[in-house]
Amino acid sequence: MTDDQRQTLRHPDGVSELVVGERAFETARPSLEGWVDARTLFVLSTPRVRELWGHALDPVRVAARRVVELEVEDGEGAKTPAHAGRLWREMVAAGGKRDSRMVTLGGGTVGDLGGFVAGCFLRGIDYAQIPTTLLAQVDAAVGGKTGVDLPEGKNTVGLFHHPSWVVADTRVLETLPRRERAAGLAEVVKMAFLLDPPLLEAVERTLETLLDGDASALAPVVAGAIAAKRRVVEDDPREGGRRMLLNFGHTLAHAIEAELDYRGLRHGEAVAYGMLFALRLSRARGLEHRAAQRLRDLIRRLEPAPLPTLDAERLAAWTARDKKAREGGLAWVLARQLGDGVVCRDIGADEVEATIQAFLADPWDLP
Amino acid sequence: MTDDQRQTLRHPDGVSELVVGERAFETARPSLEGWVDARTLFVLSTPRVRELWGHALDPVRVAARRVVELEVEDGEGAKTPAHAGRLWREMVAAGGKRDSRMVTLGGGTVGDLGGFVAGCFLRGIDYAQIPTTLLAQVDAAVGGKTGVDLPEGKNTVGLFHHPSWVVADTRVLETLPRRERAAGLAEVVKMAFLLDPPLLEAVERTLETLLDGDASALAPVVAGAIAAKRRVVEDDPREGGRRMLLNFGHTLAHAIEAELDYRGLRHGEAVAYGMLFALRLSRARGLEHRAAQRLRDLIRRLEPAPLPTLDAERLAAWTARDKKAREGGLAWVLARQLGDGVVCRDIGADEVEATIQAFLADPWDLP
Repeated sequence: MTDDQRQTLRHPDGVSELVVGERAFETARPSLEGWVDARTLFVLSTPRVRELWGHALDPVRVAARRVVELEVEDGEGAKTPAHAGRLWREMVAAGGKRDSRMVTLGGGTVGDLGGFVAGCFLRGIDYAQIPTTLLAQVDAAVGGKTGVDLPEGKNTVGLFHHPSWVVADTRVLETLPRRERAAGLAEVVKMAFLLDPPLLEAVERTLETLLDGDASALAPVVAGAIAAKRRVVEDDPREGGRRMLLNFGHTLAHAIEAELDYRGLRHGEAVAYGMLFALRLSRARGLEHRAAQRLRDLIRRLEPAPLPTLDAERLAAWTARDKKAREGGLAWVLARQLGDGVVCRDIGADEVEATIQAFLADPWDLP
Repeated sequence: MTDDQRQTLRHPDGVSELVVGERAFETARPSLEGWVDARTLFVLSTPRVRELWGHALDPVRVAARRVVELEVEDGEGAKTPAHAGRLWREMVAAGGKRDSRMVTLGGGTVGDLGGFVAGCFLRGIDYAQIPTTLLAQVDAAVGGKTGVDLPEGKNTVGLFHHPSWVVADTRVLETLPRRERAAGLAEVVKMAFLLDPPLLEAVERTLETLLDGDASALAPVVAGAIAAKRRVVEDDPREGGRRMLLNFGHTLAHAIEAELDYRGLRHGEAVAYGMLFALRLSRARGLEHRAAQRLRDLIRRLEPAPLPTLDAERLAAWTARDKKAREGGLAWVLARQLGDGVVCRDIGADEVEATIQAFLADPWDLP
């Protein structure tokens, strides 16, 4: 577990500077001002986030030659090629140049959309991510994945475009609903379980304070999760191998979300259930009961909303369409033991469907 | 001047293999078959090009697990975010995966659009460019620039996504109209003048045969132009410096094209006039009359369509919106001497407009 408030992520196109903590806004400000340095600054946000946290950017706005505010509605509905198209047109019309800057201020939707828009505007302009949800701070904002959704699938269009800056100020997490923080913690737990057992311990130890949104307790946990993700991304920037471990729990999660038409469960909650499912496949391949139980118990403390009634056959069909699938077939991320994940490509469709069946009968049971 | 029929372009994300010549299809085939290797193959083309040259891909189609034909209309109108969106949806619906392959078969429009679509599909799939115009062979297909147009500006949305393969078979140039070949030769002349004087000599010497579309005469010239571009792109993949030299003649060309609403002149013809204009600015900064005259005389032999009546003030206003502009102002590419270009950022708006005025009075005159 690393607790660095300033980290540097090295990627094929340069570096991302990651500033994390209770006073990340203040820490990052001088650097952001220098980065903006009398250029055009595009600020992408939503009405709600702008009202809550827009002021945090005021000093950076002052450093720009001019500021162009870009807005999208709240919610995942903004992540479409059509919205990207509208933003590009506004940016060209506003006279944006290749060395203009963009800041995204918001949750994962704003960051994913903004990163895609920045990455394709005049073949790529620099941008900074200022994530305002726990999920976005520990996951979406770090690692350069950007994208938008099609009716045929989430995140099916996008590119790798790393932000020059990620500023994760944990004070913004205080204004989130508790359920949103719990969902974000599911992603922290995911990384901790496969990549950083000491971080898992820290989450177990301080979970109530974290759920309460204590900015100071959240700071080391967010920094630790970001560090875990950073190391994996540096090892495997294009998700050719090790980075796939970050998809632990995500194959079934995506299937559940798609089947529910992205309603009812938060992404982190779907991932929580996806991990419970992955534990079953992992148990069948030798994962110790004690390790599985430990993760299951921690997930239970996150109190995800109950899993709606679902059909095993339909879920199995959704998993076959997973983005992680290659021409050769589907890849499942499993746990060999605590702190040790593996990508498994030889799980038959029959086993998947049977295991989904058992899982749906009692998600919390562990064979 | 290099005359290599097989070249390798090294770029930040890997390499592009460039196969050039009179029998490039046959030379590249075994490699392309191995590259496709039982995967899903998307083939993007237009009805006209598919009819003329689609058969050249038949052996590669056989090597695929299945082939999904994608189609766009002929002409620049296909290069829009909306067309990209439609293609992405077709590709997801067809079950495309991250290791699926795409081949673009067509001119610059198909290559630019296809490269953009490949670059953003599931965050980037491998693709091959099979350019079927001279312009696309010597310019658009090499160097990884991809993109689409907005109503507010050409190529304003895109990314750098290098093809794994570029196959430039000069036999396809035989079926082009002579005027199209002349327009493509304008880009060859552009590169030769600033980057490769021996190539300039070769074009001067063989121009009539080249204009006639002789595949064997075109082979070394296309290979030479591709080599010149390849070296510049390897030096400066993201167009931070030296690669800007490839924009010689392009600032006024883009202004002329925009003012004419992209009608009447071909891109290469606009570039021919743009070079004549750049020669004026270059002359005022010390370019020898003899070198300028030599380029002017060669451009004249390309017989570009006459320049329509244009307004100097309006053209000057268009140049100010050029994509090469940075927050600090506009960059002009000038010639210091034969084989030596320079990027010039300190040319005042008054001089630009006065020079446009003089240029419009007689484009072919050289001060």
